[in-house]
Amino acid sequence: MRLSDGRELIYFDECEAVTRNVTDPRQLAAAPFTGGLRYDAALDEWVAMAGHRQDRTYLPPDDQCPLCPSTEGRHTEIPSSGYDVVVFENRFPTFAYPGAAPQRGDPDPAVRARPATQRTRSALHARQPAVGRCEVVCYTSDHNATLADLPARRIRTVLEAWVDRTLALSSLPNVEQVFCFENYGREIGVTLHHPHGQIYAYPFVTPRTRRMMETARDYRERTWRNLFADLLAEELRSGERIVARNEHWTAFVPFAARWPLEVHLYPSRQVTGLPELSEAERSDFCPIYLEVLRRMRALYGTPIPYISAWHQPPVRIDRELGYLHVQIHSARRAPGKLKYLAGSEAAMGAFINDVLPEQAARTLREARV
Amino acid sequence: MRLSDGRELIYFDECEAVTRNVTDPRQLAAAPFTGGLRYDAALDEWVAMAGHRQDRTYLPPDDQCPLCPSTEGRHTEIPSSGYDVVVFENRFPTFAYPGAAPQRGDPDPAVRARPATQRTRSALHARQPAVGRCEVVCYTSDHNATLADLPARRIRTVLEAWVDRTLALSSLPNVEQVFCFENYGREIGVTLHHPHGQIYAYPFVTPRTRRMMETARDYRERTWRNLFADLLAEELRSGERIVARNEHWTAFVPFAARWPLEVHLYPSRQVTGLPELSEAERSDFCPIYLEVLRRMRALYGTPIPYISAWHQPPVRIDRELGYLHVQIHSARRAPGKLKYLAGSEAAMGAFINDVLPEQAARTLREARV
Repeated sequence: MRLSDGRELIYFDECEAVTRNVTDPRQLAAAPFTGGLRYDAALDEWVAMAGHRQDRTYLPPDDQCPLCPSTEGRHTEIPSSGYDVVVFENRFPTFAYPGAAPQRGDPDPAVRARPATQRTRSALHARQPAVGRCEVVCYTSDHNATLADLPARRIRTVLEAWVDRTLALSSLPNVEQVFCFENYGREIGVTLHHPHGQIYAYPFVTPRTRRMMETARDYRERTWRNLFADLLAEELRSGERIVARNEHWTAFVPFAARWPLEVHLYPSRQVTGLPELSEAERSDFCPIYLEVLRRMRALYGTPIPYISAWHQPPVRIDRELGYLHVQIHSARRAPGKLKYLAGSEAAMGAFINDVLPEQAARTLREARV
Repeated sequence: MRLSDGRELIYFDECEAVTRNVTDPRQLAAAPFTGGLRYDAALDEWVAMAGHRQDRTYLPPDDQCPLCPSTEGRHTEIPSSGYDVVVFENRFPTFAYPGAAPQRGDPDPAVRARPATQRTRSALHARQPAVGRCEVVCYTSDHNATLADLPARRIRTVLEAWVDRTLALSSLPNVEQVFCFENYGREIGVTLHHPHGQIYAYPFVTPRTRRMMETARDYRERTWRNLFADLLAEELRSGERIVARNEHWTAFVPFAARWPLEVHLYPSRQVTGLPELSEAERSDFCPIYLEVLRRMRALYGTPIPYISAWHQPPVRIDRELGYLHVQIHSARRAPGKLKYLAGSEAAMGAFINDVLPEQAARTLREARV
């Protein structure tokens, strides 16, 4: 369905009998989208400018949460009076299509003549429209829940939403990468407490993914092998950083972890993107993902801020080099202490980790959940 | 001189008549250095492991500050009862030489057979010793001052310390990059309030610098020109993002700024590293650097957290591609609000800036200082 300002909203229901026919009565005006991309020639990267987001909703009181279901007296972003999982376009997007959202595969030559991933060899100060999509994924109607509290059944519904959105967003014109993620915890700047994640459809390949694909290509040319498959094999061989395992997934602290808490969750089989996961792989993902989140939370007896990031390869290039996986990290380095990105990390990209990966893995394995 | 555990300490005095002969009476035991580097094969980068830093001094009360001068009853890191600028080896270093510190140019074949900057094509899980140096630069005896409060004369002394240390550290075996920087403000995790900066001598080229050199090399091959000189020229041509200028320096918000407050300070002439700055350039640097810091501080009426980072090219390679400059950025996006690195930035390296660079530059120009 569409919200009153034209944004798309999709319910993912666990029960087929639900009818979703409540409309959005708010008569919101479609906000003018002023975002743009600027080319950073010093790093050959695109930076998104989103001045319109500066005034976005910031830590509203619980009774004004825009992600709760609507009630008779208060209309939120979700018109229905309850939901399982719901996805909708962000009201304050970094990436959006000007005017009406395009249909799947609809070419939009006016937006961009060539992919933003290509170097702009002409102008040092190049600009592009920030086309793409930013979506919000609400995990539950319950304002006070967290993802880690939900049953495996609900994780499965969230996973199906990620799969559906990856397929849909990958088919939009100009989208080069689809990124499903969750920022959790006030300490890392989350502006809404209601349990939710986000999906970004970028009009360029992100710097991190571009770097990983370059490294994977170099590795394949040297060895004829997949870099990430070999990294997983190396972790399994060593074993000392494994946090949890089941038939189809392995969770481990990586050998060269950058963060005091960092867990990577790989499928046993090389899978490119979320839609390729088999039924058995989807089913096995839910308990191990919950287990990792719960082990992290158990460490300090308090909720722990984290970023959980699905790594999928670019939409149009290098797909055979990718290996779908989740990277979860937390800046929590001790109770009451956060790791900050200071000069070495923020300015030079050189990470210093105060916690040995083997120690982090042991602590996580021993946490009572 | 040497501190009691063997660490080097150097006074930079503004008055030649000062005699520095007070020794360190603390009888500190030399701490075993357990740091190491691990290779992140997914990104082809080195990550430093520093488990011994987890228990470093953290926000001590003012009367236990280790960076204040010593008094009769309390011995700090600085044996003297006062100082102008003093530099010493960090007690909790990320990079250090095992055993005695080497002399200048002293080859140490035992430490490393080949530069860490070369790809380790053999092992996915490679390790290297974290050789190098971490130094602390104290700007003043006055615990409650900030760099922005100091007179230009003192900035000049700090600059001379940076020059001296860049020369000395560049000549140490295995050092590939020298990075002078300041982390300022509790909000970005500074663990000691006494006004100070740091210098890291890395045994590898940092990811950021490596990327910038790659981009600069590509640009030179296409245009026969220096990328950073052309970026400065483009900013001067446009003019709308200039914050301050004098004969030898220009401060501007870059066209593709990543942070809500970001200022780059370039010399007018292409200079590779700090030691090459002329007398006139050194002299002109002090007032404009102070002006930029004071304009940033004036924005919100409260001290503003920032990271100030000197960009120098690698020690041994690509020097002709570099262009010495300072990048200062703050995560402060509004009074009481910080920009956090969330999923897009922290996991994918894709930055979203909520403040337009032209607006940031105008605000800084109009700040009353």
